[in-house]
Amino acid sequence: MTDIAMIEAAAARAKGVVRETPLLNSPFLDEVAGRPVWVKAEVLQHTGSFKFRGAWSAISALDPELRARGVLAYSSGNHAQGVARAAQLHGIPATILMPADAPRLKIENTRAYEAEVVLYDRAGGEDRNVLGAELRDARGLTLIKPFDEPQVIAGQGTCGLEIAAQAAAEGVTEATVLTCCGGGGLTAGIALALEARAPGMQVRPVEPVGFDDTARSLASGQIQRNTGPEAGYCDAILTPAPGDLTFPVLHRLCGPGLVVTEHEVRAAMRAAFERLKLVIEPGGAVALAAALFHGAALADGPVIATASGGNVDADTFTEALSTAPKP
Amino acid sequence: MTDIAMIEAAAARAKGVVRETPLLNSPFLDEVAGRPVWVKAEVLQHTGSFKFRGAWSAISALDPELRARGVLAYSSGNHAQGVARAAQLHGIPATILMPADAPRLKIENTRAYEAEVVLYDRAGGEDRNVLGAELRDARGLTLIKPFDEPQVIAGQGTCGLEIAAQAAAEGVTEATVLTCCGGGGLTAGIALALEARAPGMQVRPVEPVGFDDTARSLASGQIQRNTGPEAGYCDAILTPAPGDLTFPVLHRLCGPGLVVTEHEVRAAMRAAFERLKLVIEPGGAVALAAALFHGAALADGPVIATASGGNVDADTFTEALSTAPKP
Repeated sequence: MTDIAMIEAAAARAKGVVRETPLLNSPFLDEVAGRPVWVKAEVLQHTGSFKFRGAWSAISALDPELRARGVLAYSSGNHAQGVARAAQLHGIPATILMPADAPRLKIENTRAYEAEVVLYDRAGGEDRNVLGAELRDARGLTLIKPFDEPQVIAGQGTCGLEIAAQAAAEGVTEATVLTCCGGGGLTAGIALALEARAPGMQVRPVEPVGFDDTARSLASGQIQRNTGPEAGYCDAILTPAPGDLTFPVLHRLCGPGLVVTEHEVRAAMRAAFERLKLVIEPGGAVALAAALFHGAALADGPVIATASGGNVDADTFTEALSTAPKP
Repeated sequence: MTDIAMIEAAAARAKGVVRETPLLNSPFLDEVAGRPVWVKAEVLQHTGSFKFRGAWSAISALDPELRARGVLAYSSGNHAQGVARAAQLHGIPATILMPADAPRLKIENTRAYEAEVVLYDRAGGEDRNVLGAELRDARGLTLIKPFDEPQVIAGQGTCGLEIAAQAAAEGVTEATVLTCCGGGGLTAGIALALEARAPGMQVRPVEPVGFDDTARSLASGQIQRNTGPEAGYCDAILTPAPGDLTFPVLHRLCGPGLVVTEHEVRAAMRAAFERLKLVIEPGGAVALAAALFHGAALADGPVIATASGGNVDADTFTEALSTAPKP
């Protein structure tokens, strides 16, 4: 399983390729939250989300001969783009299985990174695992899992190394770190990195209402599944359940999960637009929403929120700006 | 007048306060432009524009006793916010004269940085210079000019130092550097910094149609004025003429000016939204517009465009997203 040495090794392989994204703040956000708020701007990562870190880490760690045959990924969008771009930069083929109802921009971008996109109908019950296994076997591809894969978690952990170093440079060594949490790859990676490099920080995963599998899993101590719809406003971070590899890390290292409303997510997107000049997608804004509007549930002191992705259609973004109350 | 030693000194005073903003790129922008495009994301600077650099430089260079009495600025917005925030961080009072028709967000933010905002009616012919002189004399304030001031130019020049170092780290030492140009403070500062630190780069100022005073001045070798309306879509960079201090620098160091349309500006704003996840205001998007759509007028090779500011109302931003063609 992933440990700090694997994360450091992933950071070494990422050097000169993965961007060090800035840790931003604004006195206006501090005022809304009533405490210092820092935003780790992963929307500025290559492909517009942190997923490029994990994809680069996993692909760069493969045996070169195996890697040359190509990689396969299942994803509704950000992992797809991360894998497609990391494969393109390695000069190897990528095949990506995407649900046909994924955001148009994410499908188009994945294709633009020269990946072959295979669409499947998730509402109609097509089983992506069956479809994926057929493709994998026929082409000799290596599956790059979105979160339950040690090298992917190690790649996401490089974001945690940066948080530890950048916060320390600002004089911040004790803080609550809020992560946008789907399957838990980013959350586990950051938690492992901070355990080693910033032990005064506690990670708390954040999810949208109706998709709080991680919060319920942490509360019960056992993996719980979402039973409602598969799709939703925060599409980037909707997964059925925390992973078999990620959950034990979350259970050991994270504080209780937090749950935010769509209304709060829109307000966070608007706040980031106005105060940080960042474009954040709904799933990438849940952590900032918790920072701004759930302070009562957080320990005193600074909060660091990951803005995990920015791949949002213009219509969705416009709608968020127009319906959100001014923060 | 400003020289590289003053710029280096401004950078030393800025350390730990002014943000080093990232130099970003995207394969999708490269494809549109047909060449490598880099964007210097000054929208991520404190107060949402490069103006904080010049304001910090000028205020931090003042004699402490003089500084304690407070500062005065005239500005339609970004310089106002930069001076207000730099004054607030120095713990000194700021008085800002702003036109009553400046963007609402810029007026509100300037007040939120604890500056006293005095509005004047530019259409009605109120003379801000008379008004400003009265306030200055009555209160013993120091005027921080928006561009024609050596320490302000030195502060803007720190952006050029970063461009030189960041581009070199990406292997880029020869490039066209496009600047969003109003009075020429940013352009002159960057040009002076690059003259010393990246002599293989040439600066070319960019302006919106109808406000091409710098392009005409460079073409004629003498300062030319705008004779049309004072206000326009690219509000942040509309000035009557290049400055007496900035123009000689531009004339000596810059290539010909470029002029872009509002349509191109909207398309650049949309491209930055989609491909870089950055919010850029109209006046801050003219350089990227030239990079994307005026390649025929540029020397071969990479182009570096400053995204100089992001202080745009939600309505103006969403209108640009909806009317711009997809790049």
